[in-house]
Amino acid sequence: MTSPLGFPVEEFKQRTSAAQALMAQHGLSALMLTTEPEIRYYTGFLTRFWESPTRPWFVIVPAAGDPIAVIPSIGAHLMGQGWIKDIRTWAAPDYEDDGIALLIGALSEIVPANGRIGLADQMESHVRMPLAHLRRLEIALSPRTIVGDAMITRHLRMVKSEAEIDKIRHAAGIANRAFDRVPDSVSAGMPLSEVFRRFQCLCLEEGADWVPYLAGAAEAAGYADVISPATDAPLALGDVLMLDTGLVWDGYFCDFDRNFSIGSLAPDVATAHYRLIDATHAAADIAKPGVTIADLFQAMNGIVNPSGDVMEAGRLGHGLGMQLTEWPSIIPQDHTVLVPGMVLTLEPSVIVRDGKILVHEENIVIREAGAEFLSQPQSRDIRVI
Amino acid sequence: MTSPLGFPVEEFKQRTSAAQALMAQHGLSALMLTTEPEIRYYTGFLTRFWESPTRPWFVIVPAAGDPIAVIPSIGAHLMGQGWIKDIRTWAAPDYEDDGIALLIGALSEIVPANGRIGLADQMESHVRMPLAHLRRLEIALSPRTIVGDAMITRHLRMVKSEAEIDKIRHAAGIANRAFDRVPDSVSAGMPLSEVFRRFQCLCLEEGADWVPYLAGAAEAAGYADVISPATDAPLALGDVLMLDTGLVWDGYFCDFDRNFSIGSLAPDVATAHYRLIDATHAAADIAKPGVTIADLFQAMNGIVNPSGDVMEAGRLGHGLGMQLTEWPSIIPQDHTVLVPGMVLTLEPSVIVRDGKILVHEENIVIREAGAEFLSQPQSRDIRVI
Repeated sequence: MTSPLGFPVEEFKQRTSAAQALMAQHGLSALMLTTEPEIRYYTGFLTRFWESPTRPWFVIVPAAGDPIAVIPSIGAHLMGQGWIKDIRTWAAPDYEDDGIALLIGALSEIVPANGRIGLADQMESHVRMPLAHLRRLEIALSPRTIVGDAMITRHLRMVKSEAEIDKIRHAAGIANRAFDRVPDSVSAGMPLSEVFRRFQCLCLEEGADWVPYLAGAAEAAGYADVISPATDAPLALGDVLMLDTGLVWDGYFCDFDRNFSIGSLAPDVATAHYRLIDATHAAADIAKPGVTIADLFQAMNGIVNPSGDVMEAGRLGHGLGMQLTEWPSIIPQDHTVLVPGMVLTLEPSVIVRDGKILVHEENIVIREAGAEFLSQPQSRDIRVI
Repeated sequence: MTSPLGFPVEEFKQRTSAAQALMAQHGLSALMLTTEPEIRYYTGFLTRFWESPTRPWFVIVPAAGDPIAVIPSIGAHLMGQGWIKDIRTWAAPDYEDDGIALLIGALSEIVPANGRIGLADQMESHVRMPLAHLRRLEIALSPRTIVGDAMITRHLRMVKSEAEIDKIRHAAGIANRAFDRVPDSVSAGMPLSEVFRRFQCLCLEEGADWVPYLAGAAEAAGYADVISPATDAPLALGDVLMLDTGLVWDGYFCDFDRNFSIGSLAPDVATAHYRLIDATHAAADIAKPGVTIADLFQAMNGIVNPSGDVMEAGRLGHGLGMQLTEWPSIIPQDHTVLVPGMVLTLEPSVIVRDGKILVHEENIVIREAGAEFLSQPQSRDIRVI
């Protein structure tokens, strides 16, 4: 951890004033934040306590001035370590009123009677509070209205600061080292569930704060899906083992995978792996400011999927940062223009045989001159155990 | 993993028919499920892929018959391994229509025009889909209405089956062994961040599938809060180190902590620890069917907090199972009557000195004859490193 907040206070102030400039453009008198990444983005509030669904947390970004936290008292000490000074608390859980009166009070102070309050309502968002409480809030705040947030926070988060990029690079470095140690740590005959446990330990030993995400598979000549939990089936010769990790360092994720052949590999597996690596580089080679997300999709899809059918995964990569996956999605319909500071995963998948796929993933950041790899790029030859 | 679903199909059918009986009582033609634990409860769909916020997932429990899954195609293979046969998919993410038309179609088929669709809207719940899509859904389904779910799923989940209790006990056993190994794995001078990493490895080595939650602290004579991430500050003589883990085995959590004195401890710390253990046992001793949650609160609070002030934590324990924390909360306002099969944490906290607290936690299950400990109960004497 570089500082208790992860960043200098100046960075949070900059994020807040950037949001406020956009709020003015969109006629919003406040942003109401309810989810972990939204709240952390403006406040630096970093805790694994979000794992508990019990308590709602609210932060308000006013049209001018610093954000206001309306939070359970159990979080007051941690929030107080940061830069937010206006922290209003209640003893949650409260079955009569779980912070709603306090929230109504704060919003009523800040938002004029005809004002509009922005709440994230678009794809990849949800509102982390009970729906009945949101409905109560809407009535109590009337004639103020709760409207979409004009995607302001999503827009700001899509372009990372150098300090954010450094954290993602650090996380990716941890995963690089963990992947490099896999051949010494696992072997044929080991149950996949045990492989998963060992790999998570490798990530921790190499410096991960925690390992929120690990998916993978091991099957002959590829795998049927990439989201199943590990079974106790032992690694067998001819299997392709895939491990895909989203580990966290100081609140930022990396997200990439590596494939390992258990013993010698079939020619079609080797060829499929070549195509994945070639596809990744085809996208990375053109990934510079001015190019679109759709261009990256086409560069990869032409190599891994010349028939042009839609793959089950639905996309060939995505944004990355405070969350394992962030906006945008690398699909043909996404015409987002790349700008420096965007961090993306390139994640092509390819069909090896009927019902068997391989997936490969790398992490890049867009620079003025092109893509910089944050993960150590994998060579064309699959790793062998 | 005991089976690909975690339970025999019969258990999912029983859960579904129990929900349907309550739906009939409450006049609901369908339940609409959007969150991980709700969907897993009825379908057995277990994956860490929920870490990605990109895709919404929907399951519908109709008034009669088996649940229907309306999910991204990336999940079709895994869902297809289970007992749900009606699986409708779309290639998510889809910027034009991210599953909403498919969901409208399924609900329109199942729910009569004057029917009511139950959606969780109470405390500890949220709706995991974009708010704008929910609003679109409400309009499209009209005159059908989306109403609260009468807390049906929360009610059912509060009482665990023997198979669920076995999983929680197994998870707790892993944590017991990990805690026992802490004195051999950490020592004065080690940064707290390193302690956290090593403890997570101990949990994995002892059999955890993953470690979604670890909180803790190490400060002289107690700690200021229990939700902060680890700093790099080294353990010092006189510190109390607290580690609180929610580790998962086969989809079920344990949730308890242990305190460790680094070297010899101050008399007021020792006394505080005695009171925590005594409070835990005071609650466990009376925890039997017919007693209320409020009674458990009073049994603990009289020992740890004789002044009766509200503690910052806001509660002295909670439900436990598929989530780190579940309904109910152990607060004086909760009059839930205990019944066999409820799994609870008892989590008293006590003020040692100004601004310094200690927290202790155990996991129990309510049996006909009283409480059975799922965690190995801690003795009065604090553990020493």
